[in-house]
Amino acid sequence: MLTLYDYLPSQNGWKVRVLLGLLKISYHSQIVSIFEGESRSERFLKLNPAGAIPVLEIEDGRTIAESNAILAYLAEGTPFLVADRYPRAKAMQWLFFEQYNVEPAIGSLRFWTLTGRLERNRDMVVGKREAGARTLAALDRSLANTPFLIGKDLSIADIAVYAYSHRAEDCGFSLTNYPAVSVWCDRVRDAIGPKYPVYPYSVDPHSGA
Amino acid sequence: MLTLYDYLPSQNGWKVRVLLGLLKISYHSQIVSIFEGESRSERFLKLNPAGAIPVLEIEDGRTIAESNAILAYLAEGTPFLVADRYPRAKAMQWLFFEQYNVEPAIGSLRFWTLTGRLERNRDMVVGKREAGARTLAALDRSLANTPFLIGKDLSIADIAVYAYSHRAEDCGFSLTNYPAVSVWCDRVRDAIGPKYPVYPYSVDPHSGA
Repeated sequence: MLTLYDYLPSQNGWKVRVLLGLLKISYHSQIVSIFEGESRSERFLKLNPAGAIPVLEIEDGRTIAESNAILAYLAEGTPFLVADRYPRAKAMQWLFFEQYNVEPAIGSLRFWTLTGRLERNRDMVVGKREAGARTLAALDRSLANTPFLIGKDLSIADIAVYAYSHRAEDCGFSLTNYPAVSVWCDRVRDAIGPKYPVYPYSVDPHSGA
Repeated sequence: MLTLYDYLPSQNGWKVRVLLGLLKISYHSQIVSIFEGESRSERFLKLNPAGAIPVLEIEDGRTIAESNAILAYLAEGTPFLVADRYPRAKAMQWLFFEQYNVEPAIGSLRFWTLTGRLERNRDMVVGKREAGARTLAALDRSLANTPFLIGKDLSIADIAVYAYSHRAEDCGFSLTNYPAVSVWCDRVRDAIGPKYPVYPYSVDPHSGA
């Protein structure tokens, strides 16, 4: 059986939970206590040298890190990652867009906002806010004429980009300013279904939330 | 023929130039004047909504953005991206590691250092320096017992990660502190060969370098 090293409030973890659920793959969940240093332990760094969750351990004990690499691995051969060369490349484009633009801007601001860390990160907040607005504008342009990021159906590109961007209002962005993003969020939410809760940071007593 | 929208001092562009060269794929080069706002123009945003180079335009006019998505697209079916499911997932892991850790830390610090922008970005320098050191340490751990990131041969994982990390001394890191990274850099340099210069920012009169 697969093991997912996870942290409930992480939307990078959420992405993987969603895809495992949609693919009906059962797995063992191993929660990592981030704020107690568990992801920086020698043992954990053997699973992922970058010291971050999620990490997927496959049946033979080997591991895959980076949430979007895990999505691509699990989606191979399924409708969530098309096989044709060009749309596959576009899916990859969106996965990299997400890790370079969505998560570092909206994910970081949201974390700081929800766990009382805005003040101590004050020097970076303006830059992150500008980056978040640019990111949502780029998404809005891209979603103007397409139901999902890669054509007519939900793919791992949508799951990845939606994970943090649909929570942008948690850190002060208004999705009504991005109408195409807003409509797409509703569409992705309906396609994913209600089984995958977004956990508040307060489920972790060590998070500061 | 392929067209690569490029900016010579960008190591994200360099990655793609290297792979196109190693694959002996001829292409047309279209230089984008970043500091004159060309990558934020309406026309360019149609090629890449994120407003960044490189962008690859394929024969039929469709485009692929994000350097690492372009690498994966070009390397499909070649020895630079193995077909087996697990090593392919590890290659993807390293590509995401690069865009989340290497480029935002070492790439940004290097840019600020070489173009006189350290002072104006002072508030972020300490954090970026810590992130760069963590990134090099993670790489060093990972490269201790393997010649290349994915086994015995050069892959797109090496090309991507090497692009900025082998220039870490440009912004004050000492690679002698990371012996496995240092040996790997020599190995990747030899495997790539001498045909792909790293361009100084000063080739662009608008860069401030």
